[in-house]
Amino acid sequence: MAGDLIDSLCMENDSKIIFLILDGLGGMQVDNAGESELGTAKTPNMDKLVAENTCGLMIPVEHGITPGSGPGHFGLFGYDPVEANIGRGVLSASGLEFKLTERDVAARVNLATLDSSGNVSDRRAGRIATDENKRICQKLRENVRLSDGVEFFLDTEKEHRALLVVRGDGLGGTINDTDPQLLGVPPLKPEGADAASQKTTRYLMEFLDQAKKILADEPQGNMLLLRGIAKHRRYPTLYERFKLNAYAIANYPMYRGISRLVGMDIAPVSQNLSTQIDELENSWDKYSFFFMHIKETDACGEDGNFEGKVAAIEETDALLPRITKMNPDALIITGDHSTPAAMRAHSWHPIPVALASKLARRDPVKEFSENACLGGGLGMFESKNLMNLALAHAGKLAKFGA
Amino acid sequence: MAGDLIDSLCMENDSKIIFLILDGLGGMQVDNAGESELGTAKTPNMDKLVAENTCGLMIPVEHGITPGSGPGHFGLFGYDPVEANIGRGVLSASGLEFKLTERDVAARVNLATLDSSGNVSDRRAGRIATDENKRICQKLRENVRLSDGVEFFLDTEKEHRALLVVRGDGLGGTINDTDPQLLGVPPLKPEGADAASQKTTRYLMEFLDQAKKILADEPQGNMLLLRGIAKHRRYPTLYERFKLNAYAIANYPMYRGISRLVGMDIAPVSQNLSTQIDELENSWDKYSFFFMHIKETDACGEDGNFEGKVAAIEETDALLPRITKMNPDALIITGDHSTPAAMRAHSWHPIPVALASKLARRDPVKEFSENACLGGGLGMFESKNLMNLALAHAGKLAKFGA
Repeated sequence: MAGDLIDSLCMENDSKIIFLILDGLGGMQVDNAGESELGTAKTPNMDKLVAENTCGLMIPVEHGITPGSGPGHFGLFGYDPVEANIGRGVLSASGLEFKLTERDVAARVNLATLDSSGNVSDRRAGRIATDENKRICQKLRENVRLSDGVEFFLDTEKEHRALLVVRGDGLGGTINDTDPQLLGVPPLKPEGADAASQKTTRYLMEFLDQAKKILADEPQGNMLLLRGIAKHRRYPTLYERFKLNAYAIANYPMYRGISRLVGMDIAPVSQNLSTQIDELENSWDKYSFFFMHIKETDACGEDGNFEGKVAAIEETDALLPRITKMNPDALIITGDHSTPAAMRAHSWHPIPVALASKLARRDPVKEFSENACLGGGLGMFESKNLMNLALAHAGKLAKFGA
Repeated sequence: MAGDLIDSLCMENDSKIIFLILDGLGGMQVDNAGESELGTAKTPNMDKLVAENTCGLMIPVEHGITPGSGPGHFGLFGYDPVEANIGRGVLSASGLEFKLTERDVAARVNLATLDSSGNVSDRRAGRIATDENKRICQKLRENVRLSDGVEFFLDTEKEHRALLVVRGDGLGGTINDTDPQLLGVPPLKPEGADAASQKTTRYLMEFLDQAKKILADEPQGNMLLLRGIAKHRRYPTLYERFKLNAYAIANYPMYRGISRLVGMDIAPVSQNLSTQIDELENSWDKYSFFFMHIKETDACGEDGNFEGKVAAIEETDALLPRITKMNPDALIITGDHSTPAAMRAHSWHPIPVALASKLARRDPVKEFSENACLGGGLGMFESKNLMNLALAHAGKLAKFGA
């Protein structure tokens, strides 16, 4: 985990930090003309906040690296995004509120369809209905039996997606995906990179061999492909590291899952940002750190919907006064990575950061955009430093050394 | 120690480097209005120097970390401030010109007063007079005897403060403070974190038990509280690392102490900056590196005296031509950390840096202030890189690699 130094300096007190995270906030021009999404959006409230405070640009992970949501958020929360990186299976389990134990290995499952020769003909089983997924999982739970008293758990997510957890002693999780990512070839065999992981693959093969027989008469979803296999690991919590009582106001399973992994309490799912802010107001006295997550900016970026992303930013800006009215000691507005609509994908481009605090050194920047933030007082820094800056500006760090 | 690479490239030659350190130079606006102290000060000479050379901003230690004077200065001198950090006991010893050996463990002492139940009633013995301190230290030197031939040294600093050094074989220094930082409770027992440190605590307990009896009839200062206990360590010197013959023109014991630890010769105490510059002129031919330290900026910052800090900066600016007239190959003007008057304390905010050299790449910045330096050619960098830049601009670094 980044920064034993910072951990050793943290002080528990009543000051409040808010991270307002617009997922995929960073963007860029389209067809080499015009401004980015944030540069285009009318954001009078964010502009005022920047003009009275400070800003900068944040590099997710390191120069040129495009992070997934996992590393993107671990960085935001002050964890070294490389060291903290973990298989998607564990994130899925956490997002489903499945309580993993130290004996567990988790995998994401795709229900898939094999042809009569055993080759993959549909990697998502025709995006099978969720109810069908549930029926198939139920059938497997009733009929698969692993040896040596090893347990398994199989939970439906949505459509073709599910979660498989194998629980036993001495299991490792360094195992390849069985999804070949191609059609017309058979699923890959799971292979373990070490003795503990090879032990796991024996039980995975038992599971898959039995499943193949049990599902043989299913027209769709007659096989399972495993991805993101990973052993559970326990992260030091935000309280253990930074003395933060943290609350996640996030609606999507992935972000709720990561928040849970770092020890946050999780708010009930809200309908929209307005009800998320209701939750912020109602829980204000109980926590010292609030993570508010907005997905719309990233979703529009991924869809190549420039105008939609602009609108999502403007809608957030319109509600910002309700957040600043809470008078947090440090308010940070940023993203976990860039998702330029022009790229329809996550990217490595630095993310604009606004930081409001009574202890912010005011810089000359007057508006919130990627290019304006180039002149900001925070300079350009890696995301793992963001939490340091938040803690410092909220008066939660002791002096280092005599 | 940071940077084996840089060490391996250093060349000894006649070029001269001056570090003009205004302690706590960085500042900020007050009540969210106006400029910082440096932004407010009229500094025509520094502005001219920046306009003709280059500048930037320096992060002491790392983002968000507020350093004490120790890490602040180790960073300036090219030492990793985290790795080089050391207990205040050793800094105090060095500041008192006590020559520690490899067999020594040093502690800062507060003379304190215990009540009849043995609880601390005054952690500073009523800020006892220095002469009384001397009398008490003398009494202890004459009467305390440690076993196993272990020696001790007890030297008065000022008022209630003193230095205790224990000298013996195989002593460790990872030991808690005995100062409970509270009244109405007894002093804490020193406890060692490892076998060598536990050996030290046996002698510290002998010392404290005997001292308690010997001082029993003292109305004030009938006990000693120990703080910042640390084993001596030898730092590679600036000559060993960078081939610099270094001279510290600094008046406060703390900074003289750190300078001595990294192998500088130490100038006699001067009355003011003008006499410090006399010393610079007089010693010019004998050294290749000059550390000039100005305390007033930090002292005013700590007192919340914005105008005083502005005045201290302006006084330094007025004398700058005498320094530039010496024609150093590299002149750096900066601080060891920020001390905004608005915060009355050290802070983590980046420190403005001016660098003058014939080899400086001229940037567009025309004045010396935190905000102007945001556009400087040196960008934003951690303090441990400052010495690299100084050595490079003074032509003291060989090319790396073929």
